[in-house]
Amino acid sequence: MTNLVRPNIAQSSGYSPGEQPTDTTTIKLNTNENPYSPSPLALEAIRAITFEQLRRYPNPRADLFRQAAASLHGVDPDCIMTFNGGDELLAAMVRACASEKDSILFLEPSYSLYPVLAEIQGADKIVQQYKINDTNWSLPDNLETIEASLLLICNPNAPSGHFEPIARLEQIAKNFLGVVVIDEAYVDFADESALALVHKYKNVILLRTMSKGYSLAGLRFGYAIGQASILKEIEKVRDSYPCDTIAIAAATAALKDQAYARSTWQKIKSERARLSCALRSLGFVLPDSHANFVLAQIPASTKQQLSGRHIYQSLKEKNILVRWWDLPHLTNKIRITVGTQEQNDKLLQELKTLICAE
Amino acid sequence: MTNLVRPNIAQSSGYSPGEQPTDTTTIKLNTNENPYSPSPLALEAIRAITFEQLRRYPNPRADLFRQAAASLHGVDPDCIMTFNGGDELLAAMVRACASEKDSILFLEPSYSLYPVLAEIQGADKIVQQYKINDTNWSLPDNLETIEASLLLICNPNAPSGHFEPIARLEQIAKNFLGVVVIDEAYVDFADESALALVHKYKNVILLRTMSKGYSLAGLRFGYAIGQASILKEIEKVRDSYPCDTIAIAAATAALKDQAYARSTWQKIKSERARLSCALRSLGFVLPDSHANFVLAQIPASTKQQLSGRHIYQSLKEKNILVRWWDLPHLTNKIRITVGTQEQNDKLLQELKTLICAE
Repeated sequence: MTNLVRPNIAQSSGYSPGEQPTDTTTIKLNTNENPYSPSPLALEAIRAITFEQLRRYPNPRADLFRQAAASLHGVDPDCIMTFNGGDELLAAMVRACASEKDSILFLEPSYSLYPVLAEIQGADKIVQQYKINDTNWSLPDNLETIEASLLLICNPNAPSGHFEPIARLEQIAKNFLGVVVIDEAYVDFADESALALVHKYKNVILLRTMSKGYSLAGLRFGYAIGQASILKEIEKVRDSYPCDTIAIAAATAALKDQAYARSTWQKIKSERARLSCALRSLGFVLPDSHANFVLAQIPASTKQQLSGRHIYQSLKEKNILVRWWDLPHLTNKIRITVGTQEQNDKLLQELKTLICAE
Repeated sequence: MTNLVRPNIAQSSGYSPGEQPTDTTTIKLNTNENPYSPSPLALEAIRAITFEQLRRYPNPRADLFRQAAASLHGVDPDCIMTFNGGDELLAAMVRACASEKDSILFLEPSYSLYPVLAEIQGADKIVQQYKINDTNWSLPDNLETIEASLLLICNPNAPSGHFEPIARLEQIAKNFLGVVVIDEAYVDFADESALALVHKYKNVILLRTMSKGYSLAGLRFGYAIGQASILKEIEKVRDSYPCDTIAIAAATAALKDQAYARSTWQKIKSERARLSCALRSLGFVLPDSHANFVLAQIPASTKQQLSGRHIYQSLKEKNILVRWWDLPHLTNKIRITVGTQEQNDKLLQELKTLICAE
């Protein structure tokens, strides 16, 4: 097929999403879904959809959602743009900002879609490493001085869960010459957002998603927050009707039900604290997480060192899915989505058995 | 913003979708929606969606839909790939096949998204004109000898509704050196499809959509039919979860309900015949349409020549929306979606008044 597709496509191996088993008995702690149901109002909105709404094209700009999000974030509706999931927003940013002669700057370890999007676009990748000092992660000092068209920062970062202070992000936004996407997919589980930077810097775009904080991963709904002048340009590369009528209705209902969403965030945060503490008691080493997952480094065993792969596979045999990557800095770690209390207990029990058996 | 986005993006004016009024009183004959409801089974599938399905990521490859489509078209499920609408499939083809050094070949007048996708990608556009002889449209003779990475053909063509014989498409598929996308968005209203070419030529991709034939424009669901070897490459540029759980369920239910869908196609075809005949009686000139719309050239008046813009605007004042473009070959024509009998009657009545008033 190398003669029918571009060489960079033929050479790319594409993105590998986490496993999505179809059964419902697996304890699924591998792709950072919210363990609690979405707002009942979202399901109500879905069930109210009519034949006429299905027959007609959706509202292209998802006005009802934009109004709700604008009111929530205290911005103008033109500062909100919707996408078929956060990943589509990332792809749009790459397509709008980076030609084949341009560079895309991102960190590692971080969201593994970033390098794939650069490869697909045929743009140069500039990869910088997080400074990792024991459990302390931080962005490298010189980041903003690097020349690139686009900088992708995930904050809270996946898979580490660490949170880069907003003051540091502001320094970067102020000095970086290209566009800075702050991927806030997990921000609902943190204490702060970079929202204020959008008002001050025209080169800052925030990514938000309904998949995690609002338990709507099944829906594919993400949005950008940015200044209207740049969003107007990004819109040119976006699909005309990226979000369908049902998704718009459900996402709008869920976003408006802040009390419900916040109650799930609170539960996840307290389970995250309990899980982190219990993992540390078992000898795992982990940075403080500001997301709905933790990145746990396998304890040094007195006997043979247990590998991340081994733990991942042993848990899978017990019907518990976590995420493991065979990548630098990650081979001796597993990423665990914070589940319900019951799910976390089962996980901890299995981990205890695995650790103590050594 | 020219310093923050690529110059080709800043220069592009983007795609302008047809008007999507929010009221339900407008007679909407402008964006080729099916005037009949989708299958009741589609709505049933939507209402059966559970909290758990919303909470979890969708099945990345939409296996249930692929199986249903594979069985319908007599191909392997790996020869089907789903997208968030046909437009996303077109964008994926452009991204996979054409670098900034490559060319994209397409016809005019045809679907006005094709040039926009080429501009966004930064690829060269090679535009060929349809041969238009009175009401007879056909592809230019030399088309397949032109060097380009990608050829986009809409068949039945929009906005003309004309159907290019499959034998001619086969000639092109056989001799063209790049990938040929046959955009069959409107094929459900034609008598034939180019499906057989997929089996014979690895460079042929068919585009299908649930928006028109299955009355699910509100859903955003399209799919490709092609050989597994090329689809595997296209998948690399596609979003990991392009179709949401609800859309997969509804599209699968609608596709399986062939009897229902075919009954709407039959009604549209007979209304198309009646509408075409009545328009011709009023002096409009139109090619035979194989789609769910007609492209009607304004009659030459004995007094002042009525323009396409004037007819479009006059109809709009009467709450009837049709499509008009200020583009070569199209300024003196309007494109009318075939509506229900009642809608078509109202349109014809208004047109009669307009024509006879001159």
